[in-house]
Amino acid sequence: MRRTTFTDMNCSVAQTLEIVGEWWTLLIIRDALFGVTRFDEFSTRLGIARNVLTQRLDTLVEHGVLTKDPYQDKPVRYDYRLTDKGRDLWTVVAALRQWGDKWAADDGAPIVTTHRTCGHTMTVEPVCSECHEPLVPGALRVHRGPGARENTPFPRH
Amino acid sequence: MRRTTFTDMNCSVAQTLEIVGEWWTLLIIRDALFGVTRFDEFSTRLGIARNVLTQRLDTLVEHGVLTKDPYQDKPVRYDYRLTDKGRDLWTVVAALRQWGDKWAADDGAPIVTTHRTCGHTMTVEPVCSECHEPLVPGALRVHRGPGARENTPFPRH
Repeated sequence: MRRTTFTDMNCSVAQTLEIVGEWWTLLIIRDALFGVTRFDEFSTRLGIARNVLTQRLDTLVEHGVLTKDPYQDKPVRYDYRLTDKGRDLWTVVAALRQWGDKWAADDGAPIVTTHRTCGHTMTVEPVCSECHEPLVPGALRVHRGPGARENTPFPRH
Repeated sequence: MRRTTFTDMNCSVAQTLEIVGEWWTLLIIRDALFGVTRFDEFSTRLGIARNVLTQRLDTLVEHGVLTKDPYQDKPVRYDYRLTDKGRDLWTVVAALRQWGDKWAADDGAPIVTTHRTCGHTMTVEPVCSECHEPLVPGALRVHRGPGARENTPFPRH
């Protein structure tokens, strides 16, 4: 069932999906961000087949997104915890949630995330790192980066 | 090959993945955001099997992410164009790209996106919609939203 790999694509979207783009994986990350660390709890919350969960967790450990530490000896059981690399996926999960809240939640958002100190809702937006202006695609210029190669996928225009 | 559906999960992350979480789909969206509209061009740029591309495009049309308009009659050929719903996925794609640039691009970012008017790089960040402060998970409170149900996945703590 392993599909074509994206490893050869010189594109950071593809490389991210290579690591977290398999079916179920971003929901495992979601629950890890929610504080879940144990196999049985992932399994119960997600309703995922155990062999699939094992494979997905192993892949995430292999890529340094999760660590795997024994919390029990007989039988051995592990805590899976997000690394810095893994926690950094929260922006991706937040962007997916925001889109789903807007376009795929007929009854409204199931959960709402607010800024603890001022009480207003969180939003994920592309902004300029310097002037902090919210950006839309038309406000952008796309350049070759330091990792560009001949086959880097670029905009058509 | 169709895997378990996420339709029953009361979670906007899951509902988004139900629509765009299949292998290849977010790369199709990436290329659509880059201005690609035609089957053969998606096929060539992505190196994706034609039957898989057909299935993915049909799913995106069915969910209102793309429209499909004939540009030629014999044989009939279509332009696939992002709707507003589809274009709104650019935040998701930008978040995936940002993570990959940081964690999975050994030679540096293949492409760099800058703010056309001030020249500085784009960043995708969760911010407060009101005070615009950049947010980290510890600065957040998670509440039940209008669409919450008994089975809505919530943080553990």
